[in-house]
Amino acid sequence: MTEFRITSRVPGSEARAGELVTPHGTVRTPAFVAVATRGTVKALGVDDLERLGVEVLIGNTYHLALRPGAERVAALGGLQGFTGWRGPWFTDSGGFQVFSLGAGKVHGVGKIASVFPGDAPPKPVGESLVHLTEDGAHFRSVVDGSPVFFSPEGVIRLQRLLGADVILPLDECTSPFHDHAYTKRAMERTHRWAERALAAFERTQGVGPNPAQALWGIVQGGAYEDLRRASARAIAGMGFPGFAIGGSLGRSKEEMLRVVEWTAEELPPDRPRHLLGIGGVEDVLQAVARGVDTFDCAAPTRLARNGVLLSLAEEGFRIPIKNARFARDDGPVEEGCDCPTCGRYSRAFLRHLLQAGELSYYRLATLHNVRFMVRLLGRVRAALAAGKAVSAVLLDPSAG
Amino acid sequence: MTEFRITSRVPGSEARAGELVTPHGTVRTPAFVAVATRGTVKALGVDDLERLGVEVLIGNTYHLALRPGAERVAALGGLQGFTGWRGPWFTDSGGFQVFSLGAGKVHGVGKIASVFPGDAPPKPVGESLVHLTEDGAHFRSVVDGSPVFFSPEGVIRLQRLLGADVILPLDECTSPFHDHAYTKRAMERTHRWAERALAAFERTQGVGPNPAQALWGIVQGGAYEDLRRASARAIAGMGFPGFAIGGSLGRSKEEMLRVVEWTAEELPPDRPRHLLGIGGVEDVLQAVARGVDTFDCAAPTRLARNGVLLSLAEEGFRIPIKNARFARDDGPVEEGCDCPTCGRYSRAFLRHLLQAGELSYYRLATLHNVRFMVRLLGRVRAALAAGKAVSAVLLDPSAG
Repeated sequence: MTEFRITSRVPGSEARAGELVTPHGTVRTPAFVAVATRGTVKALGVDDLERLGVEVLIGNTYHLALRPGAERVAALGGLQGFTGWRGPWFTDSGGFQVFSLGAGKVHGVGKIASVFPGDAPPKPVGESLVHLTEDGAHFRSVVDGSPVFFSPEGVIRLQRLLGADVILPLDECTSPFHDHAYTKRAMERTHRWAERALAAFERTQGVGPNPAQALWGIVQGGAYEDLRRASARAIAGMGFPGFAIGGSLGRSKEEMLRVVEWTAEELPPDRPRHLLGIGGVEDVLQAVARGVDTFDCAAPTRLARNGVLLSLAEEGFRIPIKNARFARDDGPVEEGCDCPTCGRYSRAFLRHLLQAGELSYYRLATLHNVRFMVRLLGRVRAALAAGKAVSAVLLDPSAG
Repeated sequence: MTEFRITSRVPGSEARAGELVTPHGTVRTPAFVAVATRGTVKALGVDDLERLGVEVLIGNTYHLALRPGAERVAALGGLQGFTGWRGPWFTDSGGFQVFSLGAGKVHGVGKIASVFPGDAPPKPVGESLVHLTEDGAHFRSVVDGSPVFFSPEGVIRLQRLLGADVILPLDECTSPFHDHAYTKRAMERTHRWAERALAAFERTQGVGPNPAQALWGIVQGGAYEDLRRASARAIAGMGFPGFAIGGSLGRSKEEMLRVVEWTAEELPPDRPRHLLGIGGVEDVLQAVARGVDTFDCAAPTRLARNGVLLSLAEEGFRIPIKNARFARDDGPVEEGCDCPTCGRYSRAFLRHLLQAGELSYYRLATLHNVRFMVRLLGRVRAALAAGKAVSAVLLDPSAG
């Protein structure tokens, strides 16, 4: 069971602040859901997450089912018991891997294609590891190459065993380069899979370590307005207590925001909306303004590992810490940041650790970037509570 | 300046408990000095070290001088300011790299040869990157291959800039497979270098971020009794306020302990003694019983990264966490351990993180192993304060 309470709205905007109540705690929204694909936020411990003010994590059913296995996680107390993170968990269904290991490889793209509208697809980066049928998704395991079959029913069972608070049905995440006809067929199959997931969810009441978990729906339809609206209406009509916006978000940030707008207009206004896989600063602010409540995105942690630290004070919000200009910079990563890294270490030291390939770099950098996201969403909530537009966050970055 | 106060002794043993007072704090001895070669304990932050009860770190002059450079460290506040660890620091001189990049490579051995007494040397693992002259050591940089020259005087200057509390003179760390004649020549040169280091230390009073730092002497002489005793007497005669036992420690643990015995017998009884590069559980206990006060060793952190967790309750004190028998083990790494890892995570979860290659594994494993060493030395101090033999620690591992 999840409950969602909207605590404030801003006139003339779809933005809302609220609380998502889960069996393992309450998440203040809008919220950043930290990515813990295989049961841990990369480079951080649970002690770190608590200190950073993280309130909710998202794991991945595909990865956790392959290793260590959903049965084993269940036997060890579910995600909460196994990982030590006893707060709220989401799990994604594996539908994104249908894309990332399938059409995403063949089309050489991510959820948003980084090409100009109208361009041909980029070159394939590999062969598809996925074969889809009406029954489900046939994968090759990324762990050992063995065949893996995910059905809508099987994915519910896996997530019952993993025990997250919010679980998602198997879907087909399409590519920005899928045409209208293919996207429509995929969407219709995703809808049939959603019905099967709902039935399986009912049949498995009481299974697993967290019987109070909630199944949310996923809206597909690519960047085609008619399909997005149709998908949002169809999925909303199935009575899910919350919704995720999945799949292709088009070929530009502008298309992504239109997709969010179309979808939010069709969804019940009183239910929570999660935008899957999006977490850029401006994307988050724009999506909140269009009615999105929660986000997950691997970019803040991945950027940290790749030497990019986030700051509202910088061009593009990015500090490339390996740059020689930081070699003698004894200031913190971001002036005014209250994260453990900024409180104790200089840009020069972080640069040294990265250059020396020291493991401690990865944690210190990730601590900052995750805290950056937590603070960003905290500022968004503060703006909403004060009746201000979300864009106020960028006008006064020192607030919050 | 370092001061050393012996607070308790055990009758019939050379063991002593005490306090080493440095410009940046007091270290309770016997103590484990955590290895922070390039300015950080691998995989940990300073917050972690504080939580673990670590009291002192050792950095490496060779590595820090190459990257980021001693001048830069000085400009950024010395090791204390640069790294965020504001407690006591040691720096090793680069003498160990004379061995590890030189004869250690050619002879294919470490400080203690892991072959049977009388065996021929193992196969070379590479060509020497070191050329020694009376002037000093010509290295090739491990960072970029460029030539680097370390003289006894230059190494003092580098350590003045780095600013550790205890610094060491350049020495030649010989190999267990160096014969008596070579070891004697090397020892005599090390003594001449020690005199030059002392003179340079006097001349550079006031240079660098930590003018109160102390220069300790290093005893060499390999595993030859006459040489070890001669070296200890010669180095002691130079008036150093503390001593390190360096170089080859022979071809077995037994030889190592004899080396420690010979050396300790010749050193002034009221001054602190550091055993370089040794940190096995039994080695530490045996060396304390022979009058050693402090130890540094990369093994606890390196073992952690390689999947070996330490426990007094296990055969050989080692838990190979990747072993399949831990896949369903929901117990902590070590029963009764108060480290952050044991308090929150199971063996099964740590095994999962290691198998998945998650960065968070390295920190959680290192947290345990470092805390293990800190607790081990705490138990040693408690035994000594109670007038018990150091071996009591192994008879009652639950104490302390």
